[in-house]
Parts: sequence; C-alpha cells; structure tokens
Amino acid sequence: MKFNRVSNRSFNQLRDFEIIRNFTNQAAGSVFVKAGNTYVLCTATIVENVPDFVKKHVDCGWVTAEYSMLPSATKIRSNRESVYGRQTGRSQEIQRFIGRSIRSMFDLRLLGARTIHFDCDVIQADGGTRCASVTGSCVAAFDAVSYLLNNSLISKNPICNNIAAVSVGKSKKQLLLDMDYLEDCNCDVDMNVVMDSKGRFIEIQATGEKSLLSRDDINSMLDLAQEGISKLINIQKECFN
Amino acid sequence: MKFNRVSNRSFNQLRDFEIIRNFTNQAAGSVFVKAGNTYVLCTATIVENVPDFVKKHVDCGWVTAEYSMLPSATKIRSNRESVYGRQTGRSQEIQRFIGRSIRSMFDLRLLGARTIHFDCDVIQADGGTRCASVTGSCVAAFDAVSYLLNNSLISKNPICNNIAAVSVGKSKKQLLLDMDYLEDCNCDVDMNVVMDSKGRFIEIQATGEKSLLSRDDINSMLDLAQEGISKLINIQKECFN
Amino acid sequence: MKFNRVSNRSFNQLRDFEIIRNFTNQAAGSVFVKAGNTYVLCTATIVENVPDFVKKHVDCGWVTAEYSMLPSATKIRSNRESVYGRQTGRSQEIQRFIGRSIRSMFDLRLLGARTIHFDCDVIQADGGTRCASVTGSCVAAFDAVSYLLNNSLISKNPICNNIAAVSVGKSKKQLLLDMDYLEDCNCDVDMNVVMDSKGRFIEIQATGEKSLLSRDDINSMLDLAQEGISKLINIQKECFN
Amino acid sequence: MKFNRVSNRSFNQLRDFEIIRNFTNQAAGSVFVKAGNTYVLCTATIVENVPDFVKKHVDCGWVTAEYSMLPSATKIRSNRESVYGRQTGRSQEIQRFIGRSIRSMFDLRLLGARTIHFDCDVIQADGGTRCASVTGSCVAAFDAVSYLLNNSLISKNPICNNIAAVSVGKSKKQLLLDMDYLEDCNCDVDMNVVMDSKGRFIEIQATGEKSLLSRDDINSMLDLAQEGISKLINIQKECFN
Amino acid sequence: MKFNRVSNRSFNQLRDFEIIRNFTNQAAGSVFVKAGNTYVLCTATIVENVPDFVKKHVDCGWVTAEYSMLPSATKIRSNRESVYGRQTGRSQEIQRFIGRSIRSMFDLRLLGARTIHFDCDVIQADGGTRCASVTGSCVAAFDAVSYLLNNSLISKNPICNNIAAVSVGKSKKQLLLDMDYLEDCNCDVDMNVVMDSKGRFIEIQATGEKSLLSRDDINSMLDLAQEGISKLINIQKECFN
Amino acid sequence: MKFNRVSNRSFNQLRDFEIIRNFTNQAAGSVFVKAGNTYVLCTATIVENVPDFVKKHVDCGWVTAEYSMLPSATKIRSNRESVYGRQTGRSQEIQRFIGRSIRSMFDLRLLGARTIHFDCDVIQADGGTRCASVTGSCVAAFDAVSYLLNNSLISKNPICNNIAAVSVGKSKKQLLLDMDYLEDCNCDVDMNVVMDSKGRFIEIQATGEKSLLSRDDINSMLDLAQEGISKLINIQKECFN
Repeated sequence: MKFNRVSNRSFNQLRDFEIIRNFTNQAAGSVFVKAGNTYVLCTATIVENVPDFVKKHVDCGWVTAEYSMLPSATKIRSNRESVYGRQTGRSQEIQRFIGRSIRSMFDLRLLGARTIHFDCDVIQADGGTRCASVTGSCVAAFDAVSYLLNNSLISKNPICNNIAAVSVGKSKKQLLLDMDYLEDCNCDVDMNVVMDSKGRFIEIQATGEKSLLSRDDINSMLDLAQEGISKLINIQKECFN
Repeated sequence: MKFNRVSNRSFNQLRDFEIIRNFTNQAAGSVFVKAGNTYVLCTATIVENVPDFVKKHVDCGWVTAEYSMLPSATKIRSNRESVYGRQTGRSQEIQRFIGRSIRSMFDLRLLGARTIHFDCDVIQADGGTRCASVTGSCVAAFDAVSYLLNNSLISKNPICNNIAAVSVGKSKKQLLLDMDYLEDCNCDVDMNVVMDSKGRFIEIQATGEKSLLSRDDINSMLDLAQEGISKLINIQKECFN
Repeated sequence: MKFNRVSNRSFNQLRDFEIIRNFTNQAAGSVFVKAGNTYVLCTATIVENVPDFVKKHVDCGWVTAEYSMLPSATKIRSNRESVYGRQTGRSQEIQRFIGRSIRSMFDLRLLGARTIHFDCDVIQADGGTRCASVTGSCVAAFDAVSYLLNNSLISKNPICNNIAAVSVGKSKKQLLLDMDYLEDCNCDVDMNVVMDSKGRFIEIQATGEKSLLSRDDINSMLDLAQEGISKLINIQKECFN
Repeated sequence: MKFNRVSNRSFNQLRDFEIIRNFTNQAAGSVFVKAGNTYVLCTATIVENVPDFVKKHVDCGWVTAEYSMLPSATKIRSNRESVYGRQTGRSQEIQRFIGRSIRSMFDLRLLGARTIHFDCDVIQADGGTRCASVTGSCVAAFDAVSYLLNNSLISKNPICNNIAAVSVGKSKKQLLLDMDYLEDCNCDVDMNVVMDSKGRFIEIQATGEKSLLSRDDINSMLDLAQEGISKLINIQKECFN
Repeated sequence: MKFNRVSNRSFNQLRDFEIIRNFTNQAAGSVFVKAGNTYVLCTATIVENVPDFVKKHVDCGWVTAEYSMLPSATKIRSNRESVYGRQTGRSQEIQRFIGRSIRSMFDLRLLGARTIHFDCDVIQADGGTRCASVTGSCVAAFDAVSYLLNNSLISKNPICNNIAAVSVGKSKKQLLLDMDYLEDCNCDVDMNVVMDSKGRFIEIQATGEKSLLSRDDINSMLDLAQEGISKLINIQKECFN
Repeated sequence: MKFNRVSNRSFNQLRDFEIIRNFTNQAAGSVFVKAGNTYVLCTATIVENVPDFVKKHVDCGWVTAEYSMLPSATKIRSNRESVYGRQTGRSQEIQRFIGRSIRSMFDLRLLGARTIHFDCDVIQADGGTRCASVTGSCVAAFDAVSYLLNNSLISKNPICNNIAAVSVGKSKKQLLLDMDYLEDCNCDVDMNVVMDSKGRFIEIQATGEKSLLSRDDINSMLDLAQEGISKLINIQKECFN
C-alpha cells in the first residue's frame, strides 16, 4: 500500500486506544479514554429520578448524554458554551448521537425509575471525539450497572449489548480508519458507525458533503468500520480484566 | 403482500407528494411541499454577504439552512422556540442535516460572495419533515439560482447535482418507505437517506435505537430508499414543466 | 379623487381578503388569511390547562396569542427569533395586542379550565399583519369553539362578539384604508383599530410619531376604520357558508 | 357628583404631580417624577453614536427609551428581569410607547449623529407608570438639549413640541382621570393618551378588553385626557422656573 | 498630613452619609442611602416562601440579595442587564457579598419559613456601592423585622448583629477611607470590610491586583476600616431616633 | 493536638499536592493539579488579540480566567452550565478571583497585544477548587510565557511574581489548613488567601457568614495561610526541575 498516513498507521489501523477506569471517584462510572491524542472523560452518574415523559411507564428508567469540549481542547481556543449562553448545534447533534447509542445498550424497564447521565467532556480533541465518547461511555455504563447491582438497587442486569464506535473516511480514493483531525479535515466523505459485539449496527452517519458516495463506497466503509469496532470491543473487554 | 399500512399504501409507495413553487414572493425561491399531511414551506433567500469563516476564500459563497416547526404543526402543541429562548437539539440536528445536504448540490466557488439561506418551516408535521425539507429546498435552490442567472449576478450555474431525500423504516420485519408519523413512532429502525439523480449518496442517517440493524437490513433499506428517491426526483423535474 | 394608490385601490378600498379555513388539520381552528400579499396562518389550539394566575378562578379558561414572522416573509430576510434567542419587542407588542383583542370575544367563565392558544405566523408580510392576525384568529376562534361544542366539552357558547381589525393611515393629507407595506412606510400617522360587529371598539392604537394628529384626524380615521371593519366582518360571515 | 374615589379626588382631578430635576448628576437630564405614589426616575443620557439603521442618514440622531420596574416597586415583589434573563413583553411594549412618544418631540436631523437614551426606572408603582415616564422624560429631554446647546454640541434646538401623557379609564359608567393602581384594576376600559402643548395627539392606546367602547366613550375619554394633559404641561413649565 | 483628597476629606474621613428610611412604601423596609454621590435604594421585601434547599429545615427562613445599577448611574451609560440578557459577573459577585453579609445578621431559624429579599439598586454610582448597599440593607433589615414583629408574624427578633461596611484603599503609600470613584480607579490596593457593632468581622475582600499588600498594610487597613465602620454604625443608630 | 481530621492530617498539613505539566498539548500551558481529591485542569491559551478596553493602551496585553465544574465533579451531579444557559454566580465570582490573582503576576505592558486565557476546569471537586486553580494556573502561566519567549514572540519575561493560594478555616475553635469538602461544609469561617513567593498578599477573601471573626482569628488564619502557601510555592518550583 503506497499511501502514507502522517501517523505512519496503515489505512485499517486504529490509533493507540487506552481506557482508564475510575479516573474520578464521584460518578458511578468514570472512564478516561485516549484515542491517540483525543482524550475524553466519560462519566456515568446515577440520579434517582426520570424525566416527565418517562414517568408514565412505571419503573422504567432513562439514559441520556451530554457532550462538551473544554475551550482549550482545540488548537484555536473555542468559546466556552456557558459563557456564550448556549450549546452549539454541533454539541447538541453529537450528544443526541451518543444518547441514542448508549440507550440502545439498555433494557430501560430493568433500570428502575432512575436516570443514568453520561457526560462526555472532551479534554483534548484530535478527531473522532464522538466515537471515543461512545466507546468510553459503554465502559462507564458497565461500571455504573455494577454499582447498581452491587448495592442491590437493581436485581437484573439491564445491559443487553456492548457497543463501540469508529469513524471511517475516504480521502483521494483511499479509505482510512479512525481518522485524526488532519485526516478528517482533508477527507471527502466521512462516516461514523456504532456497532455491538455481535456485528449489528446501532448508528450509521455518513456524510458526503464534499464528494458523493457510491454504493460500493458505503459497503467498503462499513466493512472497514466493522473491522475497527471488533478491535475496540476487544480493548473494552481487556480493561475489565 | 399481506401487510396493511393505515394509509393503504404498499410498502414501497410514497405518499402523495405535491410541490407548489412561488408560494410566497419575497424570497428568490419559495416552495410549498406536501408529503401526505406533512407540509413544509422551503424558501431560499439570497443575502449579499458571507460568514467570516468563508471570507478568506475570495468570491466563495455559502449555503446554510434553518428548520423550525410551527407550534400548531403537531397534535400536541409544541412550545414556540423563540418564546422558550432557544432552538431544541432536534431542530439543530435537523437543520445541520439539511444544510449539509443542500451544500452538496453547490460548487460554492461559483456562487460569488453571497449566502443562500434555506428556511424550512414545518406548517404541519406528519413524519418525514427533514426529508420533505431537503426535497423542497432542492427545488427552491433551482429557483434561487435562476434568479441569480437571470439577473446576471452569476454567469455560470453553481448547481452540480439535484437531490432528494426519503425515510425508510422497518416495523416487525416489514420495510416501509416514506413513513408517516404513526408508522415512525412504531417502527424499530429508522433511516433517512439523501441521494442525487445519479444514484449517489449524500447523507445516510440510520438509527437502531430500539432494535439493531443487520448488514442485510441496511442493504434492503438502501435499495428501498433509492427506489423512492428516483420517484421524488421525477416529481421535482415535473414541477419545472 | 385625484390620489392614486400603487395598487389602484380607492382610498377606502380594502385589499382582496381571502379566508381559507381548515388549512391544517392538527389545530381545532386553522385559518389561512390573505390580505393582498400579506399571508398569515392563524391557528387555535386547545390545551386542557390554564396558567397559574387563572387557576384561582374555578372553571375559568384563558385565551392567549403568539405572533411571529417567518424569516423569509420580508424582502430583507429577518433573523429567526429562536436562533437570536428571544422575541423582538415588536413581536411581543403585537402578540399582546392580538391576545387582548381575541380575549375580548370570550366569556372566559364559559370556557372551562382550558386555554386556547392563538398562533399567528406571518408567511408573507406586506403591511397590516397584526390586523390580519386578529381578523383571521376570530374565524379560528369560531372553529375551535365549534369543536368544543361538538365534542360536548362545553355546553354553552363562550363567544360574545365577533371582531375584525384594520389599519388606517394618513399620507400627505390623504386618508388610506388597509395600507400595504409601502404605504405604511410613507404614511405620517398610523392607526390600528379592532371593532366588533355592533360597531363597538376593542382596541385603538394610534401613533403620530412622524406627524401629530388633530382631533379631526382621529374622527375621520375612526370613520374609515369602521367602514373597513364592517366589510371584513361580512367576509368573515361568508366564509362560514 | 356622587361618585367617590378612594383618594377623594374628583373624577377629573390629577394626582399630586411633582417633578424633581437634577435628581442624579451623571446623566444630561435626570428627572424624578411623583404622580401620587407612582415614582419614576427618568434620565436622558447622551451617547455619541447612532444605531446602524440611522447611520445612512448623515448627521441624523436617534432617540430611544428603556423601561423597567424595580422588583420592590410593587406590593408583590416582581422578578428582576436581568435575573430572569429577559424583559417581559409588558416592559417592551411600554418602552416602545415611550420611545415613539419622545421621538415625536424631536427633529432628529438637528440632533447630530448621537443618541439620547431615555431610561425610565419605576421606583414605586401605583398605576400610570408609562404616562409618568413620558411626562418626566419630556422634562429630561429639555435638560439634555440644554446641555447640548450650552456645550455648543448643537447649534439649533431640535425639540419641536413638548408633550405629556395621562391615563383615562371608565369604571361602572364613571370616567376617571389619572387612575391609580386600584382604579386601574377595577376599570372596564383603559386609555393612555400622549398629547403636545398645542392639543395634538401623538399616541392613543385604548383597550376595551373587559368591556367594549362606544364612539361616545372615546370622545368623552379624549376630552378628559386633553383636560389632564394641559394641566400636566403647566406643571412641566413651572418646574423650569 | 500633606496629602490632599479631591473632596478635601482627611484620609480617615467618611463621605457625608445620609439614610432616608421609608423611601418607598411597598416593601417592608425601604432605605435610600447617600454616601457622598453614591445613591443606593435598599429594600427588604418579605415573601412567604423559601427556596427548595431551605425547605428541609422546618420553619427556617432565608435571606438573599440582588444588586443592580441603573444604566444612567455611571458617567458612561452602562447596558441594562435585562436587555443584554443576563447579569454581569460583577453584579453577581457583589450581590453574593451583600447576601452573605446580611445573612450573618440573622438567626434564620427564628425567621419562619419565609424569605427576605434585599434589593440594592444603585441610582448613582461614585464608588463604594457594595458597601453602601450593605450598610443600607442593614437598616432595611431592622425595618422589615419590625414589620414582622408588629404584625405578630414572628415572636422573637431574629437579628443577632447590626453591621456596616466600608472600603479602604491605598494610593501611593497613602491609606484612604471610603474611596470615591476617582480614588478607587487610582488606588493600588482595595479592601472591602464588613463588621458588626462589636468589632467582629463578617467579610474581608482585599485585592492587590495592581500592587501587592504587606502584612503591615493589611493591619493598617483593617484598623482604618474599623474606625470608619464604628462611625457608620452610629449613623445607623441615629436614623432610628 | 487532640483534634482529628478525617484525613488524619494535622491542622497545618496540606493535602497531597501533585502538579502534572503538559497534560494536554494544544494549549501553551496545560497543568493538571491534584490537591487531595480535588482535580483541576488549568490551561493557558494564547490568543493574538485583546479586548476593546485594552486596545487603547498600545502593545498592552491582557490576562483573563474562566472557571467551570464538570457536572460529574460533585457527588450530586450539578447542571451543565451551557445546558442551563448561563454560568452560576459562584462560577463567575470564582473566575474573577482567579483572573485578578493571575493578572497580578504580570506586567501586562511586556506581554504585547495578546491575551492569555486561563481555563480552570474542575474534573473532581473536594474543596479548595479556586485555590487549586490559582496555584495550577501560576504554573501554566510560566509554561505559556516560556512558549512566548522560546518563539521570540516577546523579548522580556512579563512575569513579576509567582503565586499560590490556599484556604484556611476554623471549625469549633480549631484552625484548619487546606480544607476538603467535608471540612469546608462544617467550618464556621472560611478564608481564601493568595500570596506571592515573597510573602506578599494578592487576595484575601474571608467570610464569617456562620460565625463572626475576631481580629485574632484573622491574624492566626493569615499565619497559617502563609505557612501553607510557602509549601505550595516549593512544590511549584520542584515541578520545573
């Protein structure tokens, strides 16, 4: 393969992916994820309450996510959203993506009338923050559920699947797995994929704003995503040993 | 096919789709779209200015979209976002989707230093509002560009592709094209697809929050989307005759 | 009369006024009003709840209005209020005017503990939007009350009066009924009048910011308003046949 | 006259009206107005700048007003608007009324490219705050213009008229001039009138939300307003002696 | 002492300090304070409710403060916070300072389940507004508590201490008591001190942003503050005679 | 000493204090501080621009700080300020404290027309977050200035002092240095002190909301603070070796 990535990775190689559990001690799950130079703190906090629209379903729980970048996470300092007065559209789009993904892991009826809040705070951004957030939040979800089980707050494990996420891009006819920020800026098409350990899909977000995608592109990109996600799921499993 | 849709449509049948051009007269393009009982007014307004991040590219234009639902568009009245004080995350996610899709139609370097604002205001909501917004905005884009050409504001057509969008769902193993609101509530998986007239993909958003998707599901759903979109593109063409 | 209006109307002639009932199907009343090139969608949505300050009056209802312009309603695109983060002072002033006017139609004690929300969304603006909103909302009010009566949610009609509104201006000593946007910009004094079918006044808003008003001016303008409003009330009546 | 006002005033009697000039020393005009128990501080501050929409008119000035109530101005403490995060619709409606009224006093082309900000802060509210704000701001306007003339910032007096404002109500067939808060709560119809010293009208805001107004009502109320305003204009004149 | 203050005060001399009780009549305490040219209206309004975090303590009350400057209080007009959409950080810092200070006066368990809101609105600003706010609010607190006792709403006086506040600065090695605005701008270090009548400290806020403070500086400044505060407490006492 | 702290520290013992430099790589200074279980990421980002009020001073720079807590930093999840729509008063008070402290380190005229933004994001909160923020930001300031010097963006070191901060409390007559959260909740008086390496004071914030402070208390607390700060300054120095 004659293509060279700045990082010397091969096209189907993930960045070094590190998972640090129990990074902080207040939340039931607290996972610091490093995907190359992308660092995200994913915490799972249990609140004994559910939103109004869930209340009509007796004993049903809820799972939700919030996403934010620290101002200093990027080369050019970004505005602090709380100072600006609201979240950007990008943050809201991403946190909805994370929320849907993590909710798919759960049988909410087994969670009891409580909410697990997943907070994904990007400490350093070098591409792939939404995927790192999903992959890390999945581990935090396991830790939060262990807490609930160990404290007899629930009797049955509400987690149905474990999931991971990865990005795939295409730059000048070359597919690229797990793009960093520079690759992301220069690629023509971009796809974020969330899958479970059995190879099933939870989310596909493909965007061909700069260059349209053929059906073949989609197939190759899904193949590559699947390859990356199965590696990530192995890394997730190892961090529990 | 033994499956019955409430609307008596077959699984691969679009809703009645009507396009009314020049619905209002202030914007350069003004298209009222009816997809069954979903009504969206899509307007294209030209502003002789570009955002700061575009200014560094000399003579380059910009295309952006905003999306909103009238409070009375839904059975249960929704809050007016301006009274509440901000857009919902859902509105922001959708308008970013529309914006990326419509931008993909354009060679922005041929647009000149101006912005075309696409405003998609949902007059009545019965499912598929984001797809109707894309399909209608595409027509409004052609009208706005005609205005620019006819007034010699640009000399070369900046539109590269024409596009349309449709939703596909799966409910109890049955695929469904162009779901209405009730079908959307009851389906397990949901996919929004934007394609151009040459069968290329601009956006795929697939969500399996309630039930995961196999690779076969994805393939069948993309097939069905492609079938629906080619019909929509024909309807778009007819409205210019 | 030597004066010529751009539209060739005589000074005491209304614009073509069209009322389309049941424009949408989710709200109990949905009226699309065209006053020349001013288009307003006026909907009446019933919510089975009242604001706190009404709750102390047992079984009393409430009527309220919200007003907004679509960004593309005007020649120069206006900012979307939800994106800007709040309603303009103008929108708030107008929706308070509409709310007071429509409330005057009702005996709120006969409405039951529910609120009727009147949403007036300006689809196209060519002057006189607040008056068109009142005239259209009056029709939507009748339809919403019919819904309540037909579904036995109330037993007695709470509507006491039917109302309509019109603007009157004075430009270079010439009185003008039902001004369009250009006339409104060029007139010296401006008056908005709401009356009922028995010739009684609900609201008078007269503004002589550019040129002060004599008592005679006021009298002539009220005469002209009365003439216009009685025509509008006839048009309202016809739309129920 | 057998009717008794709580305050023992006759129906056409103003409340004690006191004008204290130079209440504070930072603004060019600073007038503390007492209308009975209604206290308003009206200041006129000169800023050497105009809004963008005025800039196109060379050397033209601008006049604008802001209105707010202190939280403790009312019997039941009102929320501080800055803490709540925005002005109420009522505040915005009132400050637009004050702004239009005071602007009518000025030939803005004689003001130079500067803005006079009129800030009307209600220190104590007992009805008629918007009228007291107009009457007081008129005096502050004269002081601000004197400052401009004395400092040779302008050479010609831009004030064309002096104005005052008063409310008139009707309660159980009894007309009432200059209502206090209790009278205002109990009246059926309510009118705010702004006039100049020559008996011409700038603003009429009549509201018959609770009980409609006949043409005779309007005439009697305008007569009564005129009587009150000419007394107020005399009080204004005296405060300059 | 060769140093000359603009105001001809000696270094340890307070500005003329005037306290006007019952300035307005709606609040239980209403105190207009003049510290030289700094004017603050301090009102104490009783609301029969407490915030949620206090509710768990049965029959416990709460004391809170809000602070704001009128736009015309300063030489250069400041933005109205309600128009801007939020309080400045400065306002929030100051109102927290006032709130803590006034709360220290109270045994909240003797107040009953009610809140006293202290509103400090700066009518004119010439330095030392936060200290004038504390000193004035203390008087308003006594009046509000008298109201509660006189109306048998409480049986025991919840006030434990009376307090006052003063600023001390150091400018070119010269200590200055109770600085006005010009002195404040030019001083190197700045200290705000709140003490009770027994010489005990409630708040010390010392800031050496421009020039650091030695331990000796601190001691001298606290001495000077103590001297000023005991004079202020005498003035407070006199205003009750 | 018979008093026992939960942590078994003696009354004048700091928590374990760890400084990790270069925690992230986008900002010019990036310092992760651990003060016991309080974790704060302090970054210094250089922006080649200054606020308007600094622009009038040619070539002068600016230093500013922002402070925020991650929602999961506390035992009970706090609201995300960007979702709530604004910063709390507490956050604003703290970031102003940090800003003044760090600004005191600098001769801003040597910084050039640029701003250094200090972002203090609390990853885990166990008391003393504002002091840890100051102590960590001081180190980040040195790294940011090294960057400027090494890249020849400035020629002379603008840092005049190095500073650190610590809290001191008093609980049941026992003084306590560097309180953790539980101690902070239970203490009567609370003091935050910022000093430089020469024993001079930058900020003193003492609050006796629950129990007033005698002059002796103040002296003892300042002594203890001074002891703690000189230890912290040694730890800062070691982290550069």
